[in-house]
Amino acid sequence: MAEQYLMKGNEALAEAAIRAGLEGYFGYPITPQTEILEYFAKHLPPKNIAFVQAESEVAAVNMVYGAGACGKRVMTTTSSPGFSLMMEGVSYIACAEIPCVLVNIQRGGPGLGTIQPSQGDYFQAVKGGGHGDYNMIVMTPNSVQETADMVYEAFDLSEKYQNPVLILSDGALGQMMEKVEFKENYKVPAKDISWATTGKTPDRKMNAITSLYIQPEDMEQKNFRLQAKYKLIKENEVDYELYHMDDAEVGLIAFGLSSRLAKKTVDIARAKGLKIGLIRPKRVWPFPTEIIKEYSKKVKAFMSVEMNVGQMVEDIKLAVECKIPVEQYGKVGGIIPSPEEIIAKVEALLNK
Amino acid sequence: MAEQYLMKGNEALAEAAIRAGLEGYFGYPITPQTEILEYFAKHLPPKNIAFVQAESEVAAVNMVYGAGACGKRVMTTTSSPGFSLMMEGVSYIACAEIPCVLVNIQRGGPGLGTIQPSQGDYFQAVKGGGHGDYNMIVMTPNSVQETADMVYEAFDLSEKYQNPVLILSDGALGQMMEKVEFKENYKVPAKDISWATTGKTPDRKMNAITSLYIQPEDMEQKNFRLQAKYKLIKENEVDYELYHMDDAEVGLIAFGLSSRLAKKTVDIARAKGLKIGLIRPKRVWPFPTEIIKEYSKKVKAFMSVEMNVGQMVEDIKLAVECKIPVEQYGKVGGIIPSPEEIIAKVEALLNK
Amino acid sequence: MAEQYLMKGNEALAEAAIRAGLEGYFGYPITPQTEILEYFAKHLPPKNIAFVQAESEVAAVNMVYGAGACGKRVMTTTSSPGFSLMMEGVSYIACAEIPCVLVNIQRGGPGLGTIQPSQGDYFQAVKGGGHGDYNMIVMTPNSVQETADMVYEAFDLSEKYQNPVLILSDGALGQMMEKVEFKENYKVPAKDISWATTGKTPDRKMNAITSLYIQPEDMEQKNFRLQAKYKLIKENEVDYELYHMDDAEVGLIAFGLSSRLAKKTVDIARAKGLKIGLIRPKRVWPFPTEIIKEYSKKVKAFMSVEMNVGQMVEDIKLAVECKIPVEQYGKVGGIIPSPEEIIAKVEALLNK
Amino acid sequence: MAEQYLMKGNEALAEAAIRAGLEGYFGYPITPQTEILEYFAKHLPPKNIAFVQAESEVAAVNMVYGAGACGKRVMTTTSSPGFSLMMEGVSYIACAEIPCVLVNIQRGGPGLGTIQPSQGDYFQAVKGGGHGDYNMIVMTPNSVQETADMVYEAFDLSEKYQNPVLILSDGALGQMMEKVEFKENYKVPAKDISWATTGKTPDRKMNAITSLYIQPEDMEQKNFRLQAKYKLIKENEVDYELYHMDDAEVGLIAFGLSSRLAKKTVDIARAKGLKIGLIRPKRVWPFPTEIIKEYSKKVKAFMSVEMNVGQMVEDIKLAVECKIPVEQYGKVGGIIPSPEEIIAKVEALLNK
Repeated sequence: MAEQYLMKGNEALAEAAIRAGLEGYFGYPITPQTEILEYFAKHLPPKNIAFVQAESEVAAVNMVYGAGACGKRVMTTTSSPGFSLMMEGVSYIACAEIPCVLVNIQRGGPGLGTIQPSQGDYFQAVKGGGHGDYNMIVMTPNSVQETADMVYEAFDLSEKYQNPVLILSDGALGQMMEKVEFKENYKVPAKDISWATTGKTPDRKMNAITSLYIQPEDMEQKNFRLQAKYKLIKENEVDYELYHMDDAEVGLIAFGLSSRLAKKTVDIARAKGLKIGLIRPKRVWPFPTEIIKEYSKKVKAFMSVEMNVGQMVEDIKLAVECKIPVEQYGKVGGIIPSPEEIIAKVEALLNK
Repeated sequence: MAEQYLMKGNEALAEAAIRAGLEGYFGYPITPQTEILEYFAKHLPPKNIAFVQAESEVAAVNMVYGAGACGKRVMTTTSSPGFSLMMEGVSYIACAEIPCVLVNIQRGGPGLGTIQPSQGDYFQAVKGGGHGDYNMIVMTPNSVQETADMVYEAFDLSEKYQNPVLILSDGALGQMMEKVEFKENYKVPAKDISWATTGKTPDRKMNAITSLYIQPEDMEQKNFRLQAKYKLIKENEVDYELYHMDDAEVGLIAFGLSSRLAKKTVDIARAKGLKIGLIRPKRVWPFPTEIIKEYSKKVKAFMSVEMNVGQMVEDIKLAVECKIPVEQYGKVGGIIPSPEEIIAKVEALLNK
Repeated sequence: MAEQYLMKGNEALAEAAIRAGLEGYFGYPITPQTEILEYFAKHLPPKNIAFVQAESEVAAVNMVYGAGACGKRVMTTTSSPGFSLMMEGVSYIACAEIPCVLVNIQRGGPGLGTIQPSQGDYFQAVKGGGHGDYNMIVMTPNSVQETADMVYEAFDLSEKYQNPVLILSDGALGQMMEKVEFKENYKVPAKDISWATTGKTPDRKMNAITSLYIQPEDMEQKNFRLQAKYKLIKENEVDYELYHMDDAEVGLIAFGLSSRLAKKTVDIARAKGLKIGLIRPKRVWPFPTEIIKEYSKKVKAFMSVEMNVGQMVEDIKLAVECKIPVEQYGKVGGIIPSPEEIIAKVEALLNK
Repeated sequence: MAEQYLMKGNEALAEAAIRAGLEGYFGYPITPQTEILEYFAKHLPPKNIAFVQAESEVAAVNMVYGAGACGKRVMTTTSSPGFSLMMEGVSYIACAEIPCVLVNIQRGGPGLGTIQPSQGDYFQAVKGGGHGDYNMIVMTPNSVQETADMVYEAFDLSEKYQNPVLILSDGALGQMMEKVEFKENYKVPAKDISWATTGKTPDRKMNAITSLYIQPEDMEQKNFRLQAKYKLIKENEVDYELYHMDDAEVGLIAFGLSSRLAKKTVDIARAKGLKIGLIRPKRVWPFPTEIIKEYSKKVKAFMSVEMNVGQMVEDIKLAVECKIPVEQYGKVGGIIPSPEEIIAKVEALLNK
């Protein structure tokens, strides 16, 4: 059995990245993700893994672009305002199809906002905060253990699809301490990096990486390739958890931090005789459209529990094709909704 | 009658801003919006209006933040990658509730992409490309004349609601030349700038502008205020155009450049006996949900015509509550769809 | 008679610049020069004079380069570390022969140092802190009144010679309050700006400003032109003040703040019967070599009084061709030498 | 015997740095030094030595400051305009007493200038291009072999004195190919890094590195410490080469590239019967004042041969205390003076 550690989510994320074969990290400090930077600052240099505290988030994401273009396992981490600064770079990386792992430990917004946790960057993560049609796989852990586990997956999938993968967590998950085990016997999957700007052999031409396609036909083809890839990801990489959905009359839908509350809400509600269940997207892109659609035939209503004013609720409505009511309950400013509040909302919904 | 000019869309936009009482412009060159910068560089200094070519788009948007915080009519303009660089600043401005006009003359993405026109930044514009829950009024002109007209409106609404307003245009509209007249007798509406960081009188304390609310309760209140304002805007500021919708069997929905093609498509289709109409959002946020919902009871289907892989189509589906089919037709990479292609798609839709 | 004001040196400098026809200011805050920026921030916009607080000193000096290239009267101000950041830009401006006024309100160095006054940047000012062979006229006021007066001169000379002019002051002169009058009836001298990148008439080609001369022969010619100009400046623009030098046995040589102490030292010494005089360079480049050489035939020794570890003393030694002893006395870290200390040094020198 | 390589000066410099125990390199491309960056980009990562191409020269020098503060052997390299951008950082590093090696592969200035070789940055190197009273040891190799050898010395001296060391070379020396051998059995001398911001043991407090000394007394003490150190360096670290000085009537004085021409000039002149010799400073700071002073009693005149308009000539005049004529001969713009021109100048000097 693997050894158990008591760690903050931010530390577990960093440690997992190292164990997953991280080859370069580039970042800039911002609360509540700074522990990641600090962990790497301490642990990467002795392991001869590239670590750069860049001049800014703009610099950091472009270093990820450059180092990722060499076929290396690279990562940056930040929190909400910092991720906004990275939007140009993220769009470039998505277009250039560079594998890399990005992390947003969300804080409350908009603006400088608060350093408390939030889920206000859902749209930015899944609808393309940057310009143009692109998508990232967006993983949403809800525990320290899952934070660690998803890091390995994130790297593997980013390389499998040559696409950036975003881990969308928040300040509470980053700061809380829980027991965590790290994968034993993990091996970086074999990968083809013949496209990368490194390792040129005499028998081939130099590779060039760009996101610039001046000819409209070339840009169109690029978009076709990207869309074909995104379709493949949607078919293969949906991931979710079902909790007491079998006989549920109302399905909560929640990811990340709010899914913990949602799960607790289900337990409390069931103790009271209320048949509530939970669908938890472990990845919010690709979105678990099919399973939600399927359960829309069984439950009376869905309720999206989000720490924002209502973002994922749109994707749920699209998934159920508006066949049953879909409500949203959320809090903002770093305030975490209580199970009691959620249950009251569900009861109101059922009595409508 | 007002004098008529033959101007590029970019020039008309700049000239209209001057006539609308522009007090400061801050920008950075990027194709296909550079004519705006050039026009201002030539015309603002002689009029003693602040003009700064900043170090970067990051600098430019923060100068807009600063100058707007003084209660001045200020503006920045850019194109897709440049707008991504502004995402942090835009979220700050939205949270700090600073009136200002932002302009995105879209080019094809993602990445550096192509300099050809595109509508690929719809999501970025309406779902919050930056972090946190915020919204901007997003105006989508479809002619040089309307580009000019919307500039006045944009300033007026930004001040009325103390909110950033985005003019979302594209490279074709920016570069094409058409006749344009400028409003006569326009007057800047009376405005209260007692909140601004300028003009302190001895009887009041200094104003401070911030987007930082460390206390969760304060951040929550801020979000409540913002959401109340957004609700008000949704109630009052929807704007759209109907074209042959009275007896339409299929409703095209299109904004900006693609709405010109859609209109032409309607004409050609009607000449062939096909009953097609068009709903054109003149603003894509707030979205004309009600009118689309209303017409969903009359038409057999809607088809979203967008120069992207399908973004506004989601908002249409949400508006019609999935009661009738909603298709999407678009092109990417700067390639403009033809009316014939659109008609073929509509016919296929009707024969389904 | 002109009106008298009681002002800080920094404020008087700013006010004089406005009265001298300033057309643009670009700067960044740093103690002890921030009052200049604040004065301009308040007074320039209402007068429709360009004011930009740039992103950094690097940005500020490049804005001066750009605006000066348009033939405008432009200025930046900073303090020691900030002036180091401008070294690349200063060398570019000197090579491109752009008239402009730069101001260094010196603080103690090296490094971030102290915010107390210093004269530690003499070498940087006169030997070219930036790369390559270039020179600036360097003015060294020693009172609030002279600070103001020199601003007019600085602009006039910068335009006369198409060369940057540096006002080298310090934190004490910038912060002290004294009475000051501003020139009445000052008029900007007629100037030829046919070289500037503005005002193109149909009968001439576009002007281009550059500091890049790829061909060695072109670069050589550029240097010949610069050296010819510097020779002319050395012949015509030396400026100094003599104080009790007629019968002096020892000549103090001091500029700026330390020249005030030196003057007081002369008074005290003379009261004691010691025949000390003072040569005060009002400009340290071009250096008053001839007058120092001339007096080297009359005095027994010179003593350089500088608030550094000995910089100007080298230029004095070169001027006197080592024919008489040249000593140096200075203090560092913002500590101002006292007349008593200086007299003791002079006495020691005479008793050698 | 050590292996011989045929290498460019820039490559030899880079290879020597690696063999000298380089632990981190931070730079930005600029002709004619880019080969150094390229060499490191290729060779450092496989050796697990930190390599960062920074956002700019400002970023690079600050990364050197930070990494050097950890007690590591670190380096940056650039060419003239880039070195000007580093002036603030260099002054900070000098004040904070951080060992590191800086390299300026000079090109012709001022301004962007030309990419041809030059010695126009002598003053910047020895008189403090940055603000405040500070000094660096400045090494001036005149061959590929010496370039390599001096790198080891530079690191050793920078650590011995906790002071930045500058290698002042030029585009011709950087680009020319010559045979080079690397030191065998070189060992990094034992060094005390108990001052560094790394390696804290439980029994001591955290180290902090700063160049800020708000209290004037502290800043004064800092300057006293620096000056005491510089005095020690002047006493111990002067380095020069004498060539046919024994019976010379005229002494050329030249460093770096121009010393090669000067040596050839001596040979040609001697073949013609002219008794010329050469004093070559291998380091221009500390300057070989004593040996020049000594020979000033033997030769009739000195002639400084510099590829600029006359910079080192001032230090020679100060050294000889003006007892004999000191002339200067130089070329600018990347043009290299010929031995014939130099001989003609010497003959003119002798016939005066």
